Formats: sequence, C-alpha cells, structure tokens
Amino acid sequence: MEGGGQRLAPVAPPGQPQGEHLRLLLRRSQEAKNCAYCPYSRFPVGAALLTAGGEIFSGCNVENACYSLGMCAERAAIQKAISEGHTSFRAMAITSLLQVFPPTQTARLSSVPFSFDSDMRDHFITPCGACRQVMREFGTDWDVYLTKADGTYIVKRLEELLPLSFGPEDLKKV
Amino acid sequence: MEGGGQRLAPVAPPGQPQGEHLRLLLRRSQEAKNCAYCPYSRFPVGAALLTAGGEIFSGCNVENACYSLGMCAERAAIQKAISEGHTSFRAMAITSLLQVFPPTQTARLSSVPFSFDSDMRDHFITPCGACRQVMREFGTDWDVYLTKADGTYIVKRLEELLPLSFGPEDLKKV
Amino acid sequence: MEGGGQRLAPVAPPGQPQGEHLRLLLRRSQEAKNCAYCPYSRFPVGAALLTAGGEIFSGCNVENACYSLGMCAERAAIQKAISEGHTSFRAMAITSLLQVFPPTQTARLSSVPFSFDSDMRDHFITPCGACRQVMREFGTDWDVYLTKADGTYIVKRLEELLPLSFGPEDLKKV
Amino acid sequence: MEGGGQRLAPVAPPGQPQGEHLRLLLRRSQEAKNCAYCPYSRFPVGAALLTAGGEIFSGCNVENACYSLGMCAERAAIQKAISEGHTSFRAMAITSLLQVFPPTQTARLSSVPFSFDSDMRDHFITPCGACRQVMREFGTDWDVYLTKADGTYIVKRLEELLPLSFGPEDLKKV
Repeated sequence: MEGGGQRLAPVAPPGQPQGEHLRLLLRRSQEAKNCAYCPYSRFPVGAALLTAGGEIFSGCNVENACYSLGMCAERAAIQKAISEGHTSFRAMAITSLLQVFPPTQTARLSSVPFSFDSDMRDHFITPCGACRQVMREFGTDWDVYLTKADGTYIVKRLEELLPLSFGPEDLKKV
Repeated sequence: MEGGGQRLAPVAPPGQPQGEHLRLLLRRSQEAKNCAYCPYSRFPVGAALLTAGGEIFSGCNVENACYSLGMCAERAAIQKAISEGHTSFRAMAITSLLQVFPPTQTARLSSVPFSFDSDMRDHFITPCGACRQVMREFGTDWDVYLTKADGTYIVKRLEELLPLSFGPEDLKKV
Repeated sequence: MEGGGQRLAPVAPPGQPQGEHLRLLLRRSQEAKNCAYCPYSRFPVGAALLTAGGEIFSGCNVENACYSLGMCAERAAIQKAISEGHTSFRAMAITSLLQVFPPTQTARLSSVPFSFDSDMRDHFITPCGACRQVMREFGTDWDVYLTKADGTYIVKRLEELLPLSFGPEDLKKV
Repeated sequence: MEGGGQRLAPVAPPGQPQGEHLRLLLRRSQEAKNCAYCPYSRFPVGAALLTAGGEIFSGCNVENACYSLGMCAERAAIQKAISEGHTSFRAMAITSLLQVFPPTQTARLSSVPFSFDSDMRDHFITPCGACRQVMREFGTDWDVYLTKADGTYIVKRLEELLPLSFGPEDLKKV
C-alpha cells in the first residue's frame, strides 16, 4: 500500500489503541529505528503514528553534519502521514535502543501487563519539546507511548507532556 | 556594557526574582519585542533572560521567508547570553502583543498583585515546545514568567512546562 | 507498495532521469503539494525524490503555529525515503503553485522542450538553504528540477545550488 | 555599550571592510568561538557580523541534547544584532578550530596578504545552508569571510554561496 500505511479496522474513537492495534504500533516503532540515520549521535530512534482511520506511519531520526538540520523520528512520522493525506491522529509510540527518561518520574502506567526492571537503571524514551509542539499542531487528543529497551512502556496524554501549550486555534483568533 | 547585559546585585539563589529585579526583567521582555522581525506572522514576541549572576539578556523573534528557519525570542535570548559567556540561568520572561495562552488553564498564580480582565478574553503567552527544550538544556531550575498584554503575568517552573523531559545528563549516561 | 515508493527499472547511473522517469518524478511532485499543510503561508510546495534504485518518494510542506517548527517538502521527502531504508538519491523535483525563483537567473536549461511565458512574470521555485544542506548530507551527485506553474522546469546540480558546502565527509576527517 | 556592539566609524558602503575594520571583525569571530557550547560535536564555531553602521556583533554555536534544536554561530550573531535594533548588514566572518572547507575549491582570494599552508591539509570553514538562508533574509549584499585555523581567509559574496535563492521580496510578490 502506498505511503507506508497499513490499514486496520478503524479504532474506537474514545479509547486508546487496544490489543493488536497497540502491539502493531509498538512493533512498527521498534522496526522504524532500524532505518535511523544517526552517525553523529549514534542514538537511533523510531516512532510509529496511528491515524484516526487506523493506519500506521513510521519514522526514524535523520541527522545532519550541521546538527541543527537533523530531524527527530516523531516529526518524520507526522510529515510522512501528512504527505499521504492524513491529518487526524490518535497515538504515537517511540522507541530507542538507548532510553533516556528516568522511570521514577512516571505517573500513569499502562494497564497492559509489564514488569519493571528492579534495578530501574534504564529509562523510558520521551519526545523532545519540538516534537511535542509538532504533535500539538494536530490536536491535543493524543496518547504517547514511551517505551524502554525491554519492551515495557508507559502512556501519557500529550497535554501531560506539553501543558499550557499554544496551537493553531490560538493563531486563528488573531 | 558589552552583550546587552545589565548587571544587578546578584539575586538570592533559592527564590524567584523579587521587586526591582522582576520589574526590570518584565520590562526588558516588553522592550525586546519592539525589535522583533516578524513580517510573516506579524506576531512580535520579546523575551528577557535572568542569569544566575543577575544580568539580563533580551531577545526577539527573527522570522524568515523560509518559515522553518525563523527563531523564537526565548531561544534568541539564550544564544545571546551564551555568546557572552553565561551558562547558568534563573528566569525567563516572555511578552507579546498578542497573547495566546488561555488564562483558564493557569494553575499557579504569582503572589505579586495583579488583576485579571473579567472577560478573560485575552491570554498569557507561553513558550513553544522547542524553546522549552532549549531552556531545559541549561537546567530545570527555571522560573518562566508568562505575561499578558495588560502587564499581568503568571509564573511557572520549567518542569511544569516540559515534564518528563530529557537533557544533557541523559546523553552523558550513554 | 509500502513507503510511497513506486519502483521503476533502475535508472542509468551517469545520466539524468529521462522520459517516463522524469515525467513521473515531476508529476509526483505536483501531486504531493495537494497534501501540503500550509495554513500560515498559504504556499503549498511538493517535492519528489528519485532514489538510486529508481523509486520515487514525495513530500509536502508541513507548517506549525510556531513557524520555526515547520518543515519543507524537500526535507520531508528525504526523511520519508530514509525511513523506508533508502540512502542513495539521484534527483529531486520541486513544485509550487506560487513560483519564486526569477527565470532571468537561470543558466542551464533543460533539453526537454518547453516554452517560457513571454511576460516572464512567474518564477521557478527553488529550495531553501536548509533543504540544500539536507540534500548535501546524502551526496553531491544530485539533479534538482525547479519547476514553474506552467509545468516548465530547469535543472541544476546540487553543487550549483550549494557551492563550497561541507558535509559528512568533512566531519569524519575530524 | 549595550548589545555587544562596538561602534566604528561607518564603513564605506561599496567596498569590503578594510584594514582595522576587517582585522577586528576576524578577531571578534575568533574570540566568539571561546564561548561556544558544543558538548556534542566538540566543534566550536565563532562568527562576527558587521552592520551597515559599523558595529560588530558576535555569536557562537549553542548545541542541544536534541541535536536538531542546536543553533549555529552565524545565525546567533544575526539574532543578536536584530534584537539590538540592527537590520542592515555588510559582512560576516566565520572561525572554527576545525576547518572543513577544502581550499582547492576556493576561487576568489582576498587581496589582503596571507600565506597558504603548502600542505593544504586544512580547510576554510563555510556556513551551512540554513545560515546562508538566514543571511539571505537580510539582503544579498554580503561579504562572507571564511577563515582557516592559521588565520588566513577567503572572501565570498553571499550570492556565490547561495545562488538562485529566494527571499522576502519573493514572498511579498505573492
């Protein structure tokens, strides 16, 4: 299918992706990081984006010798989906080999069973502020799945990750 | 004085800027927006940055015909201070003519007296996700003053604006 | 096919894309701009990227209320191709409704027949400096097709568009 | 003096900065790189910007753990000058410890006496495409001084570094 989209049965609007949908979203974010172009940071990141219609688009980080011209996986996934005609999104999953978000900060854990490493020495990956703002452009109704190298994850609402945000509605008021 | 810095007596480390310090910080952010180069958005923003040593550096937004090459006021202020040898910061104040953050979302109001417009039709300006991440690079111990056109403001901690963030410490672990 | 790629017979390495390849590349860049998300500039741009293996990936601009977090079509196309495992590219075509590059500056015209508007009042679109640098990351052996609203185009080498550039080889020397 | 500006007698409009002006511009770009915040690339860059009125503003690169949120020295210098009320520029000098632009590509050498290293093993630094575009926003009448570690330099016109560019005039036509 064109555009990297894999169409699933449309997911139920109010809830989070469940069961197979969620497993596929997480797996696609893991697979995506295999394509990462990150010769400078050596820090591969993959992201998978679930559209309102049930399609999944994935992205990876693409770095540049001029570091500031690099691009994160999350934003790459959004650009890919937009370029295929999708503008309504439900969830984003993020994966890396190296996990940077300390689990002690976690607040809302997923109901899907998983076990924490007792040493708590690794971390959940978390999107940078720029990616949070680009997600915000397409609504505040997002679930963001932050994963760890062992496959466990936590889920956050975008509003939890970018509180007091501004977005397109605010500029339209002008 | 070179660098746009106006040195004040060093502010007391644990607390927020008080009295004259705070008034000057807010005034400098207002003045800075007069230099904004924003022919595309027509949305001038000013920011003022207080260093740990009590100096203030201000910045404005600088847009580009290639929109993605524009720069926000907050990041401009940080770059200016870094280029003058400062790397430890305490607070940032942000001002715009057009205010985009709805006051109903506010949680922690300043103890400094101010009055809300009863219509609540205008807003406190808030930094974009990219600026929050650039602030985060230089620590999490920041007070961020979000102002409204009438001069009132609220103050937030950076951690409130960018929770579950990653920063340089996380990459050093790698 | 996954990833938006349409595989063609591999193009001959030394030359520019010819005939059907080129027509398809140009058409894909035109189609891509229909997906542009550009509520702020109202300036839709489409780009199509030809890989060394003969596949085409397209992208459009994706803007943001925080203007500096927008993304150009050209870079979006590259991120899309990288995320599908492609890292070797041959050509990029760029299209917009509004054309900004004055034809009087053109130097090397395509051998494919086309007619200039006698008024010369419209323009060939040209990539921004950031897109030129992101293209440069993946080699200097690029043909860049700059089009006009009437479908005519000129072709430039990336080295003509970004002379005296630096790239990954330079950092590897360090 | 506020803003890092050192006012000199206004330079003669048509020519390049001469003698003391030029030496000061080059020295300021060298000094600026001492403030670079570049823990990720370990590649310090300094830039110095000469305004039409004869003032000099300097900048350094400021990197970020999210690499794409870093900023180059050249753009930092421009933001600094804009934030102090300057919008008309004449020249930019760029310096780094590590030089990346191969001297064999040089075309127009300065008339100011300098000697090339006979081994030609080091390079002149060159601005990234994004910085060229940000310079372009403020006109095409720029001299860009590309230096080497030994203090030698070459000078280029911005049009030589970013040919066939688009800028604010093009958007105004829309």
